[in-house]
Amino acid sequence: MHAARLHEYTDDMSEALTIEDVDRPTPTASDGVVVDIAGAGWCQTDNHVVEGMWEEYVPQDLPMTLGHENAGHVAEVGEEVTVVEEGDPVICHPVMTCGTCRPCRLGEDMYCENVAFPGLTHDGGFAESLLTNERAVIPLPEGTDPTDIAPHADAGITAYHAVKKAVAELNPGDTAVVVGVGGLGHIGLQCLDAMSAATVVALDPKEAARDLASDLGAHHTVDPSSEDVAAVVNDLTDDRGAKQVVDFVGADETTALGPDVLASGGDHHVVGYGGHVHEPAQTLVDGEFAYRGTLVGRYTELQELVALVDRGDVELRTTRYDLEDINTVAEKLEHGDIEGRAVLTP
Amino acid sequence: MHAARLHEYTDDMSEALTIEDVDRPTPTASDGVVVDIAGAGWCQTDNHVVEGMWEEYVPQDLPMTLGHENAGHVAEVGEEVTVVEEGDPVICHPVMTCGTCRPCRLGEDMYCENVAFPGLTHDGGFAESLLTNERAVIPLPEGTDPTDIAPHADAGITAYHAVKKAVAELNPGDTAVVVGVGGLGHIGLQCLDAMSAATVVALDPKEAARDLASDLGAHHTVDPSSEDVAAVVNDLTDDRGAKQVVDFVGADETTALGPDVLASGGDHHVVGYGGHVHEPAQTLVDGEFAYRGTLVGRYTELQELVALVDRGDVELRTTRYDLEDINTVAEKLEHGDIEGRAVLTP
Amino acid sequence: MHAARLHEYTDDMSEALTIEDVDRPTPTASDGVVVDIAGAGWCQTDNHVVEGMWEEYVPQDLPMTLGHENAGHVAEVGEEVTVVEEGDPVICHPVMTCGTCRPCRLGEDMYCENVAFPGLTHDGGFAESLLTNERAVIPLPEGTDPTDIAPHADAGITAYHAVKKAVAELNPGDTAVVVGVGGLGHIGLQCLDAMSAATVVALDPKEAARDLASDLGAHHTVDPSSEDVAAVVNDLTDDRGAKQVVDFVGADETTALGPDVLASGGDHHVVGYGGHVHEPAQTLVDGEFAYRGTLVGRYTELQELVALVDRGDVELRTTRYDLEDINTVAEKLEHGDIEGRAVLTP
Amino acid sequence: MHAARLHEYTDDMSEALTIEDVDRPTPTASDGVVVDIAGAGWCQTDNHVVEGMWEEYVPQDLPMTLGHENAGHVAEVGEEVTVVEEGDPVICHPVMTCGTCRPCRLGEDMYCENVAFPGLTHDGGFAESLLTNERAVIPLPEGTDPTDIAPHADAGITAYHAVKKAVAELNPGDTAVVVGVGGLGHIGLQCLDAMSAATVVALDPKEAARDLASDLGAHHTVDPSSEDVAAVVNDLTDDRGAKQVVDFVGADETTALGPDVLASGGDHHVVGYGGHVHEPAQTLVDGEFAYRGTLVGRYTELQELVALVDRGDVELRTTRYDLEDINTVAEKLEHGDIEGRAVLTP
Repeated sequence: MHAARLHEYTDDMSEALTIEDVDRPTPTASDGVVVDIAGAGWCQTDNHVVEGMWEEYVPQDLPMTLGHENAGHVAEVGEEVTVVEEGDPVICHPVMTCGTCRPCRLGEDMYCENVAFPGLTHDGGFAESLLTNERAVIPLPEGTDPTDIAPHADAGITAYHAVKKAVAELNPGDTAVVVGVGGLGHIGLQCLDAMSAATVVALDPKEAARDLASDLGAHHTVDPSSEDVAAVVNDLTDDRGAKQVVDFVGADETTALGPDVLASGGDHHVVGYGGHVHEPAQTLVDGEFAYRGTLVGRYTELQELVALVDRGDVELRTTRYDLEDINTVAEKLEHGDIEGRAVLTP
Repeated sequence: MHAARLHEYTDDMSEALTIEDVDRPTPTASDGVVVDIAGAGWCQTDNHVVEGMWEEYVPQDLPMTLGHENAGHVAEVGEEVTVVEEGDPVICHPVMTCGTCRPCRLGEDMYCENVAFPGLTHDGGFAESLLTNERAVIPLPEGTDPTDIAPHADAGITAYHAVKKAVAELNPGDTAVVVGVGGLGHIGLQCLDAMSAATVVALDPKEAARDLASDLGAHHTVDPSSEDVAAVVNDLTDDRGAKQVVDFVGADETTALGPDVLASGGDHHVVGYGGHVHEPAQTLVDGEFAYRGTLVGRYTELQELVALVDRGDVELRTTRYDLEDINTVAEKLEHGDIEGRAVLTP
Repeated sequence: MHAARLHEYTDDMSEALTIEDVDRPTPTASDGVVVDIAGAGWCQTDNHVVEGMWEEYVPQDLPMTLGHENAGHVAEVGEEVTVVEEGDPVICHPVMTCGTCRPCRLGEDMYCENVAFPGLTHDGGFAESLLTNERAVIPLPEGTDPTDIAPHADAGITAYHAVKKAVAELNPGDTAVVVGVGGLGHIGLQCLDAMSAATVVALDPKEAARDLASDLGAHHTVDPSSEDVAAVVNDLTDDRGAKQVVDFVGADETTALGPDVLASGGDHHVVGYGGHVHEPAQTLVDGEFAYRGTLVGRYTELQELVALVDRGDVELRTTRYDLEDINTVAEKLEHGDIEGRAVLTP
Repeated sequence: MHAARLHEYTDDMSEALTIEDVDRPTPTASDGVVVDIAGAGWCQTDNHVVEGMWEEYVPQDLPMTLGHENAGHVAEVGEEVTVVEEGDPVICHPVMTCGTCRPCRLGEDMYCENVAFPGLTHDGGFAESLLTNERAVIPLPEGTDPTDIAPHADAGITAYHAVKKAVAELNPGDTAVVVGVGGLGHIGLQCLDAMSAATVVALDPKEAARDLASDLGAHHTVDPSSEDVAAVVNDLTDDRGAKQVVDFVGADETTALGPDVLASGGDHHVVGYGGHVHEPAQTLVDGEFAYRGTLVGRYTELQELVALVDRGDVELRTTRYDLEDINTVAEKLEHGDIEGRAVLTP
């Protein structure tokens, strides 16, 4: 089958991956599940993987098929699988977990001590088929197209997970700031709206992104390249500041926003990455601020997100591309030229 | 009356404050309370105030009497005060709050929109008497000496508040790391022990401090100047890492510890300050770590700490000094020569 | 001024209260606030007070002016009041609290150790003016009519408080059952919708109430007098059951619903009262169910509800009546003939 | 092998179970685990099963081997088991779960949609060997005797789970009431002590049980048959009441205690059963009280309890009996003649 594989780390996205023929996978354990891919989203993390930014964080053996945002139809199952059967449309939680370590028993899928992460540590879904396991697949409700929903497998769940932590701290009358209205941000602000009654302020230097934010329910939008964000937030909140910042960018200049716009006791959720968190300890102490990293999300959170989508609460902006055009997509995202999310179809 | 006042910011602790005569305060509102000081603790924050580190964070008019860690006996009360009466022994919560703003109504005393902070923004307790208000005083249980308990007014409540947040995340079998066994740390580790069944690992480069930690219930002590902290913690936790770090130092090298010793999803509580938090956003994301600033504590938390002390669960190591010797104390703390806490008596 | 007063407990609502002339109140403490009533809601609890059901729960001295659901304009303030001034439109939290006891310091207004409850323990708002205090008044946003919003002072905050506890347990995909779509229920289901992404099932034997529920956002309605509620809920939830029941009725037959419709670990919130909770301990154990009483709500929760109203998320169905017709209102509610909420205007 | 089996529901404990020969079990799935029983605790629930009290709550096919409180050594494992191997000493979580339903994915083992409960729905551990699965076994730390620890498999985890919920609501200075110092209660109060700094008041009509409570750390004991419990609690708490009641008995008279001794907002945890919860809805509302059923506990909570035991924080009082004497044990417990817990050894 065709697969888009990384042979060497590079900063040149025009030759990021190579399309080549590889063997179709089959289940190797009693809980194995092979999914024929209907769509696989391209993520900023894919760029980071290509650049080698994940090499020191997780084990990677090149060449490797990328693609960790997958959905499709079940093609084959191991002998003890009961959750799905052949032909079922499914979305794939990004990681394969063991189910028996303590983090798994706590429901903390991302902390599994025996985790495998297709597209990061093993072959992923930029291919015709993907090998995953029973604990990673969620059957889709009737009427849901797996190609359309694919980006929720990672962009969606990551945005949802971060927002769910923020929502736990937000009461009606409070304000939340969403930083970056791209692939994750445009999902995150809809989740915020569906699950809280907070006022949502969306930041993005691109006008099209701000327009998208307004369409999708943001109460205010700000252009951080031309406006004084802190002044706007203070004005909107009677000088009280925002309770939560959800930062889908994670650049030096966005992580610096927290202390400027947050009310005392507020949280700055770090979802995107690339830059540094750099603040005097005294600043964190004086405002009792927290910087809280956030990593993908739980299997049960992906179930919850699928329920939100099924209710019509979250709309995905996607564009489909042929798997063959994958390096074009990599370049476009690098230059900020993807609105919403790009989905590769094999 | 005598008071120790700051006239000019300086890095020379030998001439930090000037002892001089000022007018004794009287209640200016119906909820005013004047306390005759029995003891006032000297805090690292006092050094920082002398150095001018708080000038840009809070309003300060010099000259000003320092001292925000106060206890004593009620000398005079405003006409509508009911919580205490003349002669009552009390410990003073560090801030005077309005009681009507939204943070006050939520019990978040430190976020009061109309806060006054004696010793930081108004005259404090390095004097014979202190003006505070009804919302700041907590009557002491029978048999508690106000001089002995004074450091709990700030060191104690700050340590307790941070530890209470950590305890909410700690289950039996989990490990917590206490960084720094000085004025705050030696209280914090006792609170951890009283309120959780976590394994407590205490870090301090000074042998006397590590011995104190062992005396007070730490299960393990580590010398970060000669031992590999991450290796020790991994060894103690079967490579799982600690769930919580409570950092009473807040220097560059201590804030860097979190990602090295924490399990996924863990928190690094920043209590002490002076250095920076500086980490790649990716590190926070990959381990889903949080840096959580922590600022003093609530009035109700000081009540809870007084209850802990009354149970005999928290022992304070203090040394008494005459108010006249205050600059000697300032210098000693600057050089790390105070074990436990120094208390000034007028 | 005119006031509607209870002289004797009675089951005959046609002679529940007597309209008579009493002295207009004035502030008696520095934090006193007199409000000229624009509207005061009639509540099921008023019927219960008239019947003597509260006599053994709280101190009551007859004759007493009823009315605990009040809004209007500030007429006069005590000398230290800063939150409002003469002329401000306000909604009144139902209780006057001391602000210094431990429950007050925790933000738990309803547990205040020195509480006064106008309309239950002191003279209330079925009158031209009401004496309350600074800690009980919340200024209204521009454009909000105090007469229209009055029922939120008790019906609203009580519904909001119960729903907020339920929302903390509800994830997208979960189901909540609202029992009774009257004065409280029609507010509660709108709050559920604004603050969660749960599926809302509303129960009421009256068709008009079920229609109102559908109008206001309930996803399903059930007539418990003709339908098998448990069967309907099981059907809607794939046999998983509801996660939360919010019972605004509190009759024997409604409190019995919980174990029939709840999923394991679910809560039955008891908001309305009149009947008993009566279940085998084994039933609570086997399903790990909880019966959770819920009492009015916090001051800060009324602020949050006012914010929800200001966003347009909660619509009140009210009918205005002259204060002189108060006994007619009492009778109508007794017979279930009030849709939404009745507001008395002096 | 020998097994103690229930053939018919009966109230006569002298002929509760029949010792007979049955086939030794073997693993039937890839995750099966057979445990050679070292000890199996007798529980009040066993009496209730014999009496037929569980017939309408769970599916039961008689004859059935009872015994749901098991520990021993692994005898045989299915082919994909990795958590344990032959010879490992283990304690058995009482239920076998599927690991893939939503409750399992949330860590809520007791709510598993495909649960099997050896000793309640399938053959249990009053036998030489037990068939369970990988998700139910927890390896024991070095030096822990499986016979001694067996009662923690159900009595322990149930007490721990209830207490953990109570601890989340308890601050230093608060009071918790433990009702019943038998098999569960004597564990529960030690957990309370290890995990909180609350004042613990233990109630039991038997002097020996009260003495045991004092030995194990209760701060006060009360004889409810001769003392006025509410008066004692009010006295101990300056009329504030207890914050939490943990009721290990669940009789009519103990469930009635909550409203008499609880502070506003308090919880009455229903752990034991046999009687009814019977209160006016108004009582729950007026004090904002909750009755919270509590059912066994999570797998991860049994891990936490094993950690507590390993720290030396929880001491079990057990007496060993031969499996052949099982009906004597049943009768003794019925008459309240077992102190601590009885453990059957095959």
